[in-house]
Amino acid sequence: MSTAGQVIRCKAAVAWESGKPLSIEEVEVAPPQKDEVRIKILFTSLCHTDVYFWDAKGQNPMFPRILGHEAGGIVESVGEGVTDLEPGDHVLPIFTGECKECAHCLSEESNMCDLLRINTDRGGMIHDGKSRFSINGKPIYHFLGTSTFSEYTVVHVGQVAKINPEAPLDKVCVLSCGMSTGFGATVNVAKPKKGQSVAIFGLGAVGLAAAEGARVSGASRIIGVDLNPSRFEQAKKFGVTEFVNPKDHDKPVQEVIVEMTGGGVDRSVECTGSIQAMISAFECVHDGWGVAVLVGVPNKDDAFKTHPVNLLNERTLKGTFFGNYKPRTDIPAVVEKYMNQELELDKFITHSVPFSEINKAFELMLAGEGLRCVIRMDA
Amino acid sequence: MSTAGQVIRCKAAVAWESGKPLSIEEVEVAPPQKDEVRIKILFTSLCHTDVYFWDAKGQNPMFPRILGHEAGGIVESVGEGVTDLEPGDHVLPIFTGECKECAHCLSEESNMCDLLRINTDRGGMIHDGKSRFSINGKPIYHFLGTSTFSEYTVVHVGQVAKINPEAPLDKVCVLSCGMSTGFGATVNVAKPKKGQSVAIFGLGAVGLAAAEGARVSGASRIIGVDLNPSRFEQAKKFGVTEFVNPKDHDKPVQEVIVEMTGGGVDRSVECTGSIQAMISAFECVHDGWGVAVLVGVPNKDDAFKTHPVNLLNERTLKGTFFGNYKPRTDIPAVVEKYMNQELELDKFITHSVPFSEINKAFELMLAGEGLRCVIRMDA
Ligand SMILES: NC(=O)c1ccc[n+]([C@@H]2O[C@H](COP(=O)([O-])OP(=O)(O)OC[C@H]3O[C@@H](n4cnc5c(N)ncnc54)[C@H](O)[C@@H]3O)[C@@H](O)[C@H]2O)c1
Ligand SMILES: NC(=O)c1ccc[n+]([C@@H]2O[C@H](COP(=O)([O-])OP(=O)(O)OC[C@H]3O[C@@H](n4cnc5c(N)ncnc54)[C@H](O)[C@@H]3O)[C@@H](O)[C@H]2O)c1
Ligand SMILES: [Zn+2]
Ligand SMILES: [Zn+2]
Ligand SMILES: [Zn+2]
Ligand SMILES: [Zn+2]
Repeated sequence: MSTAGQVIRCKAAVAWESGKPLSIEEVEVAPPQKDEVRIKILFTSLCHTDVYFWDAKGQNPMFPRILGHEAGGIVESVGEGVTDLEPGDHVLPIFTGECKECAHCLSEESNMCDLLRINTDRGGMIHDGKSRFSINGKPIYHFLGTSTFSEYTVVHVGQVAKINPEAPLDKVCVLSCGMSTGFGATVNVAKPKKGQSVAIFGLGAVGLAAAEGARVSGASRIIGVDLNPSRFEQAKKFGVTEFVNPKDHDKPVQEVIVEMTGGGVDRSVECTGSIQAMISAFECVHDGWGVAVLVGVPNKDDAFKTHPVNLLNERTLKGTFFGNYKPRTDIPAVVEKYMNQELELDKFITHSVPFSEINKAFELMLAGEGLRCVIRMDA
Repeated sequence: MSTAGQVIRCKAAVAWESGKPLSIEEVEVAPPQKDEVRIKILFTSLCHTDVYFWDAKGQNPMFPRILGHEAGGIVESVGEGVTDLEPGDHVLPIFTGECKECAHCLSEESNMCDLLRINTDRGGMIHDGKSRFSINGKPIYHFLGTSTFSEYTVVHVGQVAKINPEAPLDKVCVLSCGMSTGFGATVNVAKPKKGQSVAIFGLGAVGLAAAEGARVSGASRIIGVDLNPSRFEQAKKFGVTEFVNPKDHDKPVQEVIVEMTGGGVDRSVECTGSIQAMISAFECVHDGWGVAVLVGVPNKDDAFKTHPVNLLNERTLKGTFFGNYKPRTDIPAVVEKYMNQELELDKFITHSVPFSEINKAFELMLAGEGLRCVIRMDA
């Protein structure tokens, strides 16, 4: 029996308050409206950005909310005006969208769609500002337009990448945020040349995906920087050749890296969210040609601060969202890279839990253990 | 009678104390040592960087000093080991050099030579750390390795561009700093595409040279920003199409520009030296693809400060010295551009004074009048 046009009652993990364990509730998921798609989520994984908005220390609190944005699923039904997706399509919902019409979507350089770019403070759908989730008639906020910690979710069609139906969703789900973000930050933005040196700040999943991008680009030295020494053993599998723990040094880590490399690295990619790491990542690149790329999500009151002479000395500083990939246009091809074994994903997935144990994924990330924990919705 | 190998006694304008008028003195100029060239200066012009180190408010004071770095002249004699220059060559001394051997000189991207890059705190020659200038045996400090406010000066061969002897030195002297810096900042670093919008902060000679670069690149809108409204009339001759005076607005000028352009300019080039203008120049570029280029020389204690989200929104921030030109390799071709009328210089030269009236050039710049004042050494 088709559920199209009906309210679906299903399980979702609701964040009721900042920093409190999610609780699995029965929620009502309204049918998709104009330009919306309802997706049955099969696998979702936890990204650090979920944790920031769950503990909401440096971010605007918005509760109750259904978090989650790294996932894979199958289209259940589509709303009015949706022509390029149909029930049964395999898809990745993505936290930043692509309307295909605005100046950004038409630009070759940008993926910051005017209509659908990431908006962490929006709790409803763009169409009518309302939530599609409710419990006993009380609305529950959406997160990033994706809210994948639910068996069913409603997403704007512009935030849905249609992928090869043969791709294993329990693996390629991690391409819907972290792995594409890190890999793209290196290959699309930092663009190291063969033989150059690259520093990666933060050896979580995003940073190791950035390292994977450096490895694929033929970098000669890949220097991993993390405060958590347990990251280093794991990172060796990702081509990281050297390690620096800022805690092991009396001087700023940028100075340590400048010394190790005789002037600085050719490229750096920051994947921590720490403003101090962002500044270090910039100041550790070589003058004359060095390029630093910022990926981490900062606290809302952070200020990036450096002496302007560091810029005048011909360093370049950039930031990126989602590795500069356009979600609908580019991500299907990244999935194909995995299918063709040009890109490894399995090594990023260190844990897997049933949906009922979703809080364990939070505990693992808070403890800095493992990389991605995939949450199985049907289990 | 040749003066080679002899001490030359000639006139130089000496800065004895910060902010006090220069005084024309008879100085002794020692013969060039290893890898050095002695140049008879014919024309020199005043750049704002000279004024900063003369008033020394935001810079390290170093007196007595012979300032000056924008100039044209003729080689009088060469020191040991100099093979690619000979007496009679027409040259531009340049504040940043090119050894042709270091990693920067070998890189396609950098002009920040390890040996000869700009060093504002060096008062002697690289070879022996000593000055070639003296008055009654008391040494007078060099400035930027050029010290062109002297009838004769000694410069490292790596800081000397040999140019077409037919080029008029009273015009092309301005290519030895300001015009190349501004023009190169746009065409080599900001690289606007045809039809894009460009904001220029600071409409002095460097900024107008940046505007000339935007005009030559086919920019559709060139927005000039200056605190001095008298700059605007002049700037029209340089293709600047619109003007914004930050003093005319209650809100930050970056917000004014974002509104004028529906989201920000495609490129901006900062040519003021003001840290506030540097921040505005960055924050006024369009997210997704905007590129801001910093040119102005900041005070030594300035801090560039912005919210990291401005970077994450896919803006690029860069700085440049000398428009990213390699002085010996690239400047002869820029002189040819002038000879072929692809680049206009005459309109930058608004004043001319004899050497005896050099302080008038300082007065004009402090009053914000005119662009370049050329000082005639033989007059
Ligand atoms: N820009 C985007 O599109 C985008 C997308 C996804 C994730 N992110 C952000 O990327 C960052 C990384 O995400 P993740 O899921 O890999 O997180 P993670 O927690 O798995 O990894 C972050 C790592 O950074 C390390 N770290 C923290 N502060 C540090 C410092 N000062 N110096 C060195 N290392 C430090 C931590 O020890 C940890 O190992 C987060 O800020 C996340 O919000 C951004
Ligand atoms: N990076 C390099 O290689 C290089 C080379 C030459 C000059 N410079 C620097 O470039 C800058 C410009 O040099 P110039 O010779 O053209 O100087 P200038 O004094 O002729 O022009 C500077 C202009 O900036 C304007 N200005 C100052 N503060 C401003 C603000 N906050 N907002 C808007 N406008 C402002 C002034 O009114 C003036 O018109 C100076 O800082 C100079 O030291 C750098
Ligand atoms: Zn994420
Ligand atoms: Zn769009
Ligand atoms: Zn100058
Ligand atoms: Zn060199």
